[in-house]
Amino acid sequence: MNFKNFALLFLLGISVVSCSQETHSENTQNKELIFAKGEKITNSNFTGDVYLNNLVEADSLNQNAVGSVTFAPGARTRWHSHPAGQIILALDGVGYYQEEGKEKVMIRKGETVKCPADIPHWHGASADSAFVQIAITGREKGETRWLEPVTDAEYTRSN
Amino acid sequence: MNFKNFALLFLLGISVVSCSQETHSENTQNKELIFAKGEKITNSNFTGDVYLNNLVEADSLNQNAVGSVTFAPGARTRWHSHPAGQIILALDGVGYYQEEGKEKVMIRKGETVKCPADIPHWHGASADSAFVQIAITGREKGETRWLEPVTDAEYTRSN
Repeated sequence: MNFKNFALLFLLGISVVSCSQETHSENTQNKELIFAKGEKITNSNFTGDVYLNNLVEADSLNQNAVGSVTFAPGARTRWHSHPAGQIILALDGVGYYQEEGKEKVMIRKGETVKCPADIPHWHGASADSAFVQIAITGREKGETRWLEPVTDAEYTRSN
Repeated sequence: MNFKNFALLFLLGISVVSCSQETHSENTQNKELIFAKGEKITNSNFTGDVYLNNLVEADSLNQNAVGSVTFAPGARTRWHSHPAGQIILALDGVGYYQEEGKEKVMIRKGETVKCPADIPHWHGASADSAFVQIAITGREKGETRWLEPVTDAEYTRSN
């Protein structure tokens, strides 16, 4: 083997080893979701594919329910309101949040939203990206009030 | 260039392109913590290096405060209690949680803990791993009551 071939093989070897390490690392990160996706929601309060993992149930010790919700691209809640409000923590992807009478806002990984009590609003994924959120919902004043579905026209309306 | 050299160069090219894509993807994931680490806590309510990112402040809209807390290995809170309890969501690493009169339990990424109101407890990182948690703390009944530091003997006691 001449020097040129040897040099090429050496570089190729380094590239392959380096690639396989990075692939392993990347795959490990992808597999390790913090919270499992949970079960697909089958009720009519959502449009599109939405998954729920109930992390913490409200009970006499603490009136907050905490859930991880995964919206496929384009999926969203109906319009709805919470008697004690809600806090949303965006864990991954890009989503939308809109309160009645206000413009739709984009929510990205790491951002938070505070939904006031009794204000109709909706949230969900953007059209091109899934969206994973933690929802912290106070149950001390009653259950969520579900309203009309978010139409495609409402969903796609640009501000 | 003969066929052998051409084939080697071709494979090398593929490897380099493939590597650079994976490196970009991996770097993006590594850099993108969901929530920034925040500021180092300098008060005496903690032992070791602890960082706090206040994500959501309690206010008239919602009485829950939400924070991301990062404990370095060995770091922990003092014993303390919350008048309205607390919910802990483990985001990364391995931590400990102990209520007064009970055994210390290990908390891992993806697990949750509900601390009852007014029960003295502590939480923090394990000795060998950092621990990142979301703390959801109801402020409607007053502020956290801070008690004694967790001694090294208490921290290292095996169950």
